[in-house]
Amino acid sequence: MQVRVEKDTMGPIEVPAEKYWGAQTQRSKENFTIGGQTMPKEVIQAFAILKKSAAQANAQLGVLAQDKADIISEVCDEILAGNLDDEFPLVVWQTGSGTQSNMNVNEVVANRAHVLLGGDLMDEKKKIHPNDDVNKSQSSNDTFPTAMHIAGYKKVVEHTLPMIQKLRDTLHGKSEEFMDVVKIGRTHLMDATPLTLGQELSGYVAQLEYGMKALRNTLEHLSTLALGGSAVGTGLNTPEGYAELVAQKISEFAGHEFITAPNKFEALAAHDAIVETSGALKQLAVSLMKIANDIRLLASGPRSGIAEILIPENEPGSSIMPGKVNPTQAEAMTMVCAQVIGNDVAISVGGMNGHFELNVFKPVMIYNLLMSAQLIGDACDSFDKHCAVGIEPNREKIKDNLENSLMLVTALNPHIGYDNAAKIAKKAHKEGTTLRKAAIDLGLLTNEQYDEWVKPEDMIGSLKK
Amino acid sequence: MQVRVEKDTMGPIEVPAEKYWGAQTQRSKENFTIGGQTMPKEVIQAFAILKKSAAQANAQLGVLAQDKADIISEVCDEILAGNLDDEFPLVVWQTGSGTQSNMNVNEVVANRAHVLLGGDLMDEKKKIHPNDDVNKSQSSNDTFPTAMHIAGYKKVVEHTLPMIQKLRDTLHGKSEEFMDVVKIGRTHLMDATPLTLGQELSGYVAQLEYGMKALRNTLEHLSTLALGGSAVGTGLNTPEGYAELVAQKISEFAGHEFITAPNKFEALAAHDAIVETSGALKQLAVSLMKIANDIRLLASGPRSGIAEILIPENEPGSSIMPGKVNPTQAEAMTMVCAQVIGNDVAISVGGMNGHFELNVFKPVMIYNLLMSAQLIGDACDSFDKHCAVGIEPNREKIKDNLENSLMLVTALNPHIGYDNAAKIAKKAHKEGTTLRKAAIDLGLLTNEQYDEWVKPEDMIGSLKK
Amino acid sequence: MQVRVEKDTMGPIEVPAEKYWGAQTQRSKENFTIGGQTMPKEVIQAFAILKKSAAQANAQLGVLAQDKADIISEVCDEILAGNLDDEFPLVVWQTGSGTQSNMNVNEVVANRAHVLLGGDLMDEKKKIHPNDDVNKSQSSNDTFPTAMHIAGYKKVVEHTLPMIQKLRDTLHGKSEEFMDVVKIGRTHLMDATPLTLGQELSGYVAQLEYGMKALRNTLEHLSTLALGGSAVGTGLNTPEGYAELVAQKISEFAGHEFITAPNKFEALAAHDAIVETSGALKQLAVSLMKIANDIRLLASGPRSGIAEILIPENEPGSSIMPGKVNPTQAEAMTMVCAQVIGNDVAISVGGMNGHFELNVFKPVMIYNLLMSAQLIGDACDSFDKHCAVGIEPNREKIKDNLENSLMLVTALNPHIGYDNAAKIAKKAHKEGTTLRKAAIDLGLLTNEQYDEWVKPEDMIGSLKK
Amino acid sequence: MQVRVEKDTMGPIEVPAEKYWGAQTQRSKENFTIGGQTMPKEVIQAFAILKKSAAQANAQLGVLAQDKADIISEVCDEILAGNLDDEFPLVVWQTGSGTQSNMNVNEVVANRAHVLLGGDLMDEKKKIHPNDDVNKSQSSNDTFPTAMHIAGYKKVVEHTLPMIQKLRDTLHGKSEEFMDVVKIGRTHLMDATPLTLGQELSGYVAQLEYGMKALRNTLEHLSTLALGGSAVGTGLNTPEGYAELVAQKISEFAGHEFITAPNKFEALAAHDAIVETSGALKQLAVSLMKIANDIRLLASGPRSGIAEILIPENEPGSSIMPGKVNPTQAEAMTMVCAQVIGNDVAISVGGMNGHFELNVFKPVMIYNLLMSAQLIGDACDSFDKHCAVGIEPNREKIKDNLENSLMLVTALNPHIGYDNAAKIAKKAHKEGTTLRKAAIDLGLLTNEQYDEWVKPEDMIGSLKK
Repeated sequence: MQVRVEKDTMGPIEVPAEKYWGAQTQRSKENFTIGGQTMPKEVIQAFAILKKSAAQANAQLGVLAQDKADIISEVCDEILAGNLDDEFPLVVWQTGSGTQSNMNVNEVVANRAHVLLGGDLMDEKKKIHPNDDVNKSQSSNDTFPTAMHIAGYKKVVEHTLPMIQKLRDTLHGKSEEFMDVVKIGRTHLMDATPLTLGQELSGYVAQLEYGMKALRNTLEHLSTLALGGSAVGTGLNTPEGYAELVAQKISEFAGHEFITAPNKFEALAAHDAIVETSGALKQLAVSLMKIANDIRLLASGPRSGIAEILIPENEPGSSIMPGKVNPTQAEAMTMVCAQVIGNDVAISVGGMNGHFELNVFKPVMIYNLLMSAQLIGDACDSFDKHCAVGIEPNREKIKDNLENSLMLVTALNPHIGYDNAAKIAKKAHKEGTTLRKAAIDLGLLTNEQYDEWVKPEDMIGSLKK
Repeated sequence: MQVRVEKDTMGPIEVPAEKYWGAQTQRSKENFTIGGQTMPKEVIQAFAILKKSAAQANAQLGVLAQDKADIISEVCDEILAGNLDDEFPLVVWQTGSGTQSNMNVNEVVANRAHVLLGGDLMDEKKKIHPNDDVNKSQSSNDTFPTAMHIAGYKKVVEHTLPMIQKLRDTLHGKSEEFMDVVKIGRTHLMDATPLTLGQELSGYVAQLEYGMKALRNTLEHLSTLALGGSAVGTGLNTPEGYAELVAQKISEFAGHEFITAPNKFEALAAHDAIVETSGALKQLAVSLMKIANDIRLLASGPRSGIAEILIPENEPGSSIMPGKVNPTQAEAMTMVCAQVIGNDVAISVGGMNGHFELNVFKPVMIYNLLMSAQLIGDACDSFDKHCAVGIEPNREKIKDNLENSLMLVTALNPHIGYDNAAKIAKKAHKEGTTLRKAAIDLGLLTNEQYDEWVKPEDMIGSLKK
Repeated sequence: MQVRVEKDTMGPIEVPAEKYWGAQTQRSKENFTIGGQTMPKEVIQAFAILKKSAAQANAQLGVLAQDKADIISEVCDEILAGNLDDEFPLVVWQTGSGTQSNMNVNEVVANRAHVLLGGDLMDEKKKIHPNDDVNKSQSSNDTFPTAMHIAGYKKVVEHTLPMIQKLRDTLHGKSEEFMDVVKIGRTHLMDATPLTLGQELSGYVAQLEYGMKALRNTLEHLSTLALGGSAVGTGLNTPEGYAELVAQKISEFAGHEFITAPNKFEALAAHDAIVETSGALKQLAVSLMKIANDIRLLASGPRSGIAEILIPENEPGSSIMPGKVNPTQAEAMTMVCAQVIGNDVAISVGGMNGHFELNVFKPVMIYNLLMSAQLIGDACDSFDKHCAVGIEPNREKIKDNLENSLMLVTALNPHIGYDNAAKIAKKAHKEGTTLRKAAIDLGLLTNEQYDEWVKPEDMIGSLKK
Repeated sequence: MQVRVEKDTMGPIEVPAEKYWGAQTQRSKENFTIGGQTMPKEVIQAFAILKKSAAQANAQLGVLAQDKADIISEVCDEILAGNLDDEFPLVVWQTGSGTQSNMNVNEVVANRAHVLLGGDLMDEKKKIHPNDDVNKSQSSNDTFPTAMHIAGYKKVVEHTLPMIQKLRDTLHGKSEEFMDVVKIGRTHLMDATPLTLGQELSGYVAQLEYGMKALRNTLEHLSTLALGGSAVGTGLNTPEGYAELVAQKISEFAGHEFITAPNKFEALAAHDAIVETSGALKQLAVSLMKIANDIRLLASGPRSGIAEILIPENEPGSSIMPGKVNPTQAEAMTMVCAQVIGNDVAISVGGMNGHFELNVFKPVMIYNLLMSAQLIGDACDSFDKHCAVGIEPNREKIKDNLENSLMLVTALNPHIGYDNAAKIAKKAHKEGTTLRKAAIDLGLLTNEQYDEWVKPEDMIGSLKK
């Protein structure tokens, strides 16, 4: 491997000759060979937006030459276009402030800019300085959390929420379509009074709606940016008006509304916004676990399960059992939910262990948040496309189950009282007979009364379509 | 023990003669000797509000005689007054729907009403029926979640939030009081650029404000009531208009605004509202862990710690080390935080494992939610009264630390560049000397420039009081 | 309330006149009104064993008068007999070292001994000193963790393990009893190749056996005692040979083999033994969740569920649906599992956050450990008595399901290959017909070959009884 | 992209022409575009060992031709050599049984063997059948858990344990080296009685030893293999003696001792072994969090922290604060710990949610286990190399702190009693003076007695080197 020598305040170090990164990136690369997870691309992209915004704000406020700001911006655009993806080799498990990834970006931008300006990577002195120019008016301590918020916000708004909405819409459509399909209800996994398949599905729709609302509630906190706090939150070495201006630039370049954090000390020392958003994703995981679990139970069978709905048959399900088909989308979904619930604990542990002016669990927190947001979105999309859209009632099984149900007896409560109704149900259960026969045998009502009082289709309330 | 015989649909069973509860309570008591945690009193009280509201709504809608409604209400008022506290012996670890606690309330209300109406507990037939009267237009499946929401909402609004607010106010006052006390900052636990003690405390204030906001965001979901859904969400055996009317009655009797859940299927089958509120309490636990941890670190010493603040000395701290005093309130607070974070996982596990029309982890979910909400409130109150109010700066130590700090060098960046500034800091560090001396020895600036550029009081940004 | 004045190194304070506790207990009681959970009785009892052991060891080693040791022992025996239960009012949420509960015990023992020796509680000077006599050769920092280990060990060995074993034995008996009952298997909740009910149950038995083994593996660590480390682990102010001798005394009085911790610094500063035991309880919770969940699914119905087993009908299941019976023991069990899994996280958070020579999350850790150990034991006992003992196969349903199963086709793989077998299964599924008919229609085998090759009773391997 | 058509029981599908995988791999690839995490390479490698072992066992038992077994083995060796790494594109978030990854391996082995045997990938009929040959005597349901155990066991034994041991050895060496360095102890973060730096470090050593022991305790369970259970645990379609023989082959090829699981039903339906091992890794994470946190606190400063030890200065610590150096290895370590603690919850959620004969959270469980085992190992290695080896005492600061300590007063307890000793400490604290002066001023002892009784070097117990 060809190398060149780069220097930082600790001295010289060899880096791969063709790479744009510098000494600090190289040190981190060598000192942290832990795990395989590199800093998420979303964070790097957020840094590109941030560096461009800071450069332009600095120029506008007169602390950075406009031509420097412009060349910095040009490199940031290259990063955003994905042209420099190989230049960010650092792993998540580095310094807890993310300083090394911030410096990675600073170094790549400075060195690439140097080259764009006609310089050579081998030059000892570069035309753009990673700290004095690219990191101007910034600290890792305010840039990294800013990148966390940009990346997390974008992921949630551009990916997670739309994908949940899509699944919600499909389930809502199915709910309306099957609003008349009367079926047996189940509580405690035991036969209960009837409802319609549409009603059952509407509960899932409501869960997702509440979940999306909870997730949206967290966006306000996530939209606040630490930038302008610099090293410890005081804004040292930042020009007047910078915090507000750079938030405005970021909003513009990111395409979402961000504001400068009203309290910068909180924004550096704590990442409760990440904890908050993760909490909402965890709630969605809890909801989706219930939904996917119900759907695979309802689809269980084909012959010895509940089998009240049919779902798409997508893949051969077994390497040994021929013809077997499984609810694989529900399985992927529930595995994702398990992960997201675990990730939330990792984020909580990170969030609780900050000290004084800085929380140094930044990389692990954003890594888990982005993973959760990505997974929930992807899994909703996949579950939607490959499962939910194809849900159909198994009308024959639904009808059989409904007719056999002993819990239709509940309709008799207002007429003969709970205790008498219980006698009927218990007799029918013990004798394996129908409610009608048990009721008449007990002399508690007539055949005609049974017909009048026990109508499953009248036991389902008013339907909202 | 004197006994009498009570009956339910399973047959006769002996209960303590003097107790109001009936057969189903007794069965549960005998079948579930698990743990010591009884159903939280807050849930029983919420049931009393609920039963009274349901009785009055039923009467108003013509499905229950007004005199029955009134005697039921009278017993509910006795429960609310705490007069019947010994009548609710069931533990949390019972049926997952809470049916047995619902029946416990139904039985106690029916039997107590019977006695108030001049009946005798030994009478086989009671004037008020636990199911047909007290439980009229209800199911455990909609009453228990309603009681969960009432109890949780009240606890959060009447206890948790006010106590957090109190602590926040104290910290805010301290923050303003110490806004001019310039001290060393710390990032990565290492000396960093200065800020003021007031700024440092303002970060905690902001954390609590965000946390309270997040907690308040969850109240809308928590204010929706399942009541009216009856067995599976369809509202079977409930009169027209009941759901809305009973929510109105509950609002009136509880003194908070509740509304009927727009989707009853969700309200029975999932308890995402509990998950959501617990998530916000967990976020607060994460915040409070950071705050309490910082405060005990800042107060550490008295001679070999950070020792920049003084906190009240409340108790002898050691059974062996004479004169030792410890940050005990911070310890209680952080233990509470550990518990709340664990409770949140218990709630998530409960929330994710519902099946079909009913989640049957209701008791464990509300038990943990109430515990978390109580603990956060109590711990904030205790920490406020016995610690936060007495926080004082240790001005001498603060001054010494500040003056010694090498990170004041950061102020030189705009004047001599990051690399030169680093040379100064490294030289001073290595030689154990002052920044000033190192800077001048290196010939990077003059004595006068040092005086002009390095002013801790100018490194703290603009103060918001 | 009558009061008397007690003093500690902070000065005088009023305590209830008739209570034995002293100044430090009273301070804690007033300063920590947090939550309702008092220090578990098991911890207090463990302290009684410990104080008696320490007193006798001190006497034997000549640092405490024998008559003092004897009167201390006498009070400890009173505590063990439960005679002084009202003397320990402190809550879990106190100082994180448990110093206040240690002092509570010291004070009660000293003052009660003073009275037993003819003194009066109002005497300013007591014949026995809480620190110099009762706490002799001890610190809270080594006594509290010692009490944690004694209490945890006893609970696990005397309660948790025997109760799990009992449930395991019942399930094992059922497994043997039903070893010949061939039934359909289910993978992915979908019909699969057959096994016997006995085999299915044997999996649960194996889970519990592995879980008990894992739990027993943790006992070695739990059997090591911190006592002898005193304030920071060095054993300051303890006589030569004390650590070993006191462990021997504790073993004798507790009735279990304890040893002195080989490294006292670990024993004070970390509570990984608690984390370890909790981890094993969590594993058991995971197992029991699976087992209880399976059993309620297998028992689901009675008419529209799986319904392959019958379980005891213990209570009326619904306040609105007459005749409904639910798998309530499975519900209590799974709620317990949710709690134990949450408690494990609380314990982990406590365990990870120790500082230097002392972990100050002691009370929250032992509180959660004891709760988990108690709950697992109780729930196994309850589930055993009220559910597992009554499990019976629903032979008719089992037979129907088995005969209908399409996955019997797997037996044909070795004869006609996976691809041909799949064709048969798919055809039968699509046409709602039998495997036999589909196979013959496809011309892949003869009627006789079907009889020879497809025998469910030959598809279950060799049975281990 | 060039394609060819492959078929499975669901029909034809296009796959990339040059890839060895077949129809089922392709279906999974298209149906599960969720997240970016591909099935860990360790699982694929374990599958290679497994497939080779099964083929040879099948041949030896006469159910597979030896030449087929040999060509299968040859391809497996290619996989083990890493030559086919691009052939396993499936993600973790697929079917919960891992069937698709099992089939991915089956298809790649079959097709590659076909080519090695002179066939062409375009041939419709292959010389080796993925199900009938490569998957002979296997099901996904027993192969995937077998691969999980092989991969997990190897990772723990070959990587995690050795790396922890290495860190333990370094810390042990440091502990011995600094066994005489007397320093102040700290409990509750407050100054306490002295110990030596070597003693303090020995606590960490003990923690790691207990942790490794706990981890080793889990290996027995992890060494049991599901293989031979086939579809549901009964061993359907496996030859007599196969389970034992294949475990023997796997032991041979993997280089570790594995045994066939005594109960195959447990081995398919539950993954408590994974839960168990993860629990031990979580315990280690708890320990390492404490250790790394202590070390960064001890190294905090350089001027305004504890600063009692020095650790290697590896990287520039700040993009804005020149000359700053941070405890970055401790940060990476504690972030890893947060992740491992979260992963443990994900694994618990997966482990608890199995149904009947199969747990379908297999991929998420092994993904998290391998990640945790890798991270703990890597982080220990990194922390060892880049931090622990360079720990040095800051003797001057240690001496200053020790001499200033008020808690040396504890040595006076046996001579003047706890209460008098407390008076001395409190007076010295209040007046900011020395213990000696306060003691003499109070007239409680003489200058000579002070010299005789208060000797820090006598307060540290007997040192074990």
